[in-house]
Amino acid sequence: MDIAGLCRLRSGLVLKEADAARKLTGAVAAGMTDGKAIDKLQTLNLAEKIAEIQNVFVAAKQYKLLIILQGMDTSGKDGTVKGVFGQINPLGTRTVAFKAPVQVEKDHDYLWRVHREVPGSGEIVIFNRSHYEDVLISKVHGWISEETCLQRYAHIRDFERMLSETGTIILKFFLHLSKAEQKHRLEERLADPDKYWKFDPQDLAERTHWDAYQRAYEHALAATDSDNAPWFVIPSDSKTQRNLLIAGIVLEKLESLKLKYPPMNPAYRRFLVE
Amino acid sequence: MDIAGLCRLRSGLVLKEADAARKLTGAVAAGMTDGKAIDKLQTLNLAEKIAEIQNVFVAAKQYKLLIILQGMDTSGKDGTVKGVFGQINPLGTRTVAFKAPVQVEKDHDYLWRVHREVPGSGEIVIFNRSHYEDVLISKVHGWISEETCLQRYAHIRDFERMLSETGTIILKFFLHLSKAEQKHRLEERLADPDKYWKFDPQDLAERTHWDAYQRAYEHALAATDSDNAPWFVIPSDSKTQRNLLIAGIVLEKLESLKLKYPPMNPAYRRFLVE
Repeated sequence: MDIAGLCRLRSGLVLKEADAARKLTGAVAAGMTDGKAIDKLQTLNLAEKIAEIQNVFVAAKQYKLLIILQGMDTSGKDGTVKGVFGQINPLGTRTVAFKAPVQVEKDHDYLWRVHREVPGSGEIVIFNRSHYEDVLISKVHGWISEETCLQRYAHIRDFERMLSETGTIILKFFLHLSKAEQKHRLEERLADPDKYWKFDPQDLAERTHWDAYQRAYEHALAATDSDNAPWFVIPSDSKTQRNLLIAGIVLEKLESLKLKYPPMNPAYRRFLVE
Repeated sequence: MDIAGLCRLRSGLVLKEADAARKLTGAVAAGMTDGKAIDKLQTLNLAEKIAEIQNVFVAAKQYKLLIILQGMDTSGKDGTVKGVFGQINPLGTRTVAFKAPVQVEKDHDYLWRVHREVPGSGEIVIFNRSHYEDVLISKVHGWISEETCLQRYAHIRDFERMLSETGTIILKFFLHLSKAEQKHRLEERLADPDKYWKFDPQDLAERTHWDAYQRAYEHALAATDSDNAPWFVIPSDSKTQRNLLIAGIVLEKLESLKLKYPPMNPAYRRFLVE
């Protein structure tokens, strides 16, 4: 099954079509598994393989891997980090959560704080939110004009192309949640004492802009999808299927690199440890 | 006299033509002054005006100013910093000298270390060497292919356009030195005890690639000159004329912004200090 192909956003694929893809991948996944437990077991299996390859990734120092996670509140960005990348050696891996910019960040262009955090050779970096917020929340709230937004799409395309041409592999995941499932998850946060701490009234305010956000995502994804920095639309109403899909795509990419531990430096052969 | 217009590199203007411009501006300057002393006095005058406007620049927090200095060894990049920007309040001004990249810089794309250092709002930053080294020394020594070099020109154009579109004013100066004058300056470093410390045998090695450097500069300047990030070719055999020209261009730009100290916040009017 070509999971990546199913989820890959193609130019012109709008989120409504992605909804259809969600049902499709849901069905495919349902055929493969018979429950959350099996999903979890499979994800764990993939996550371990990812962790194994990451050891070689660090040693080979040949590539840089940037993973971008975007999605509405409660769509499971944190859960993905834990579920898919929880096994990885922290040596050589970093997660960066981009919050509302602080003053020194506002004083610079919006890509400044992002560029600082991109991976170096042999490093895997996961962005929990990213420069895409600057064409999403900023657009929805009218902080930027349509013209500026289009300008930023171009900046982002240029920036990601440069990263790609200088050795960075970029995988972008949009965790696609339904409005009904978000309602359910927010209600859980208000009802379950273990989840009280996750509740933020701001999430309700943002929820009132649901349709505007869907449009903003639709435009942003279509404008910034490229072979060098592809978007994957991940149906995310099911947490276990979400993790399984993402782990599968990341592993597929890592395996395609056919990484090997570097050979011994010939000059070292003559050294003897006595 | 439109100094900026004289020095501004126009697409297709090659360095040979810039040589003609050097003679021309030399002649113009000669008509204006009758010696180094007058040049220096005039530069000091301009430098003080620059420093004055910089106070408003910091307070207004409206723009960011990036000045890039490039040129062969001994062309006077350090001297320009001292002569033109020596009067400026260090608060709100930084000079960044880019050396051969260290390991963590090599591990990232070549624009990474540069982007970290760009100015924030109200800041003036002077780059002594820059990302242009990555299409100059790298090209001359064959560390990058022709294809990679062209790719980098595009990256640089994209990067500088993004900076410009997000509020950064960019002025790029190529300090154009003649081969004979460089010989003279290197010999001085070998003969004058006060200048011994400046001598680096590596400069002699680079000098053997003089023609290749001229070609690399010619191509790089033509490929990356734009209205948003213009190149100025500054005849630099005369140190005093070099400083006078650069100070004139910087001041002209700063004056064109018509900056004012920000007005009082109306909410503060009701405060009384008793």
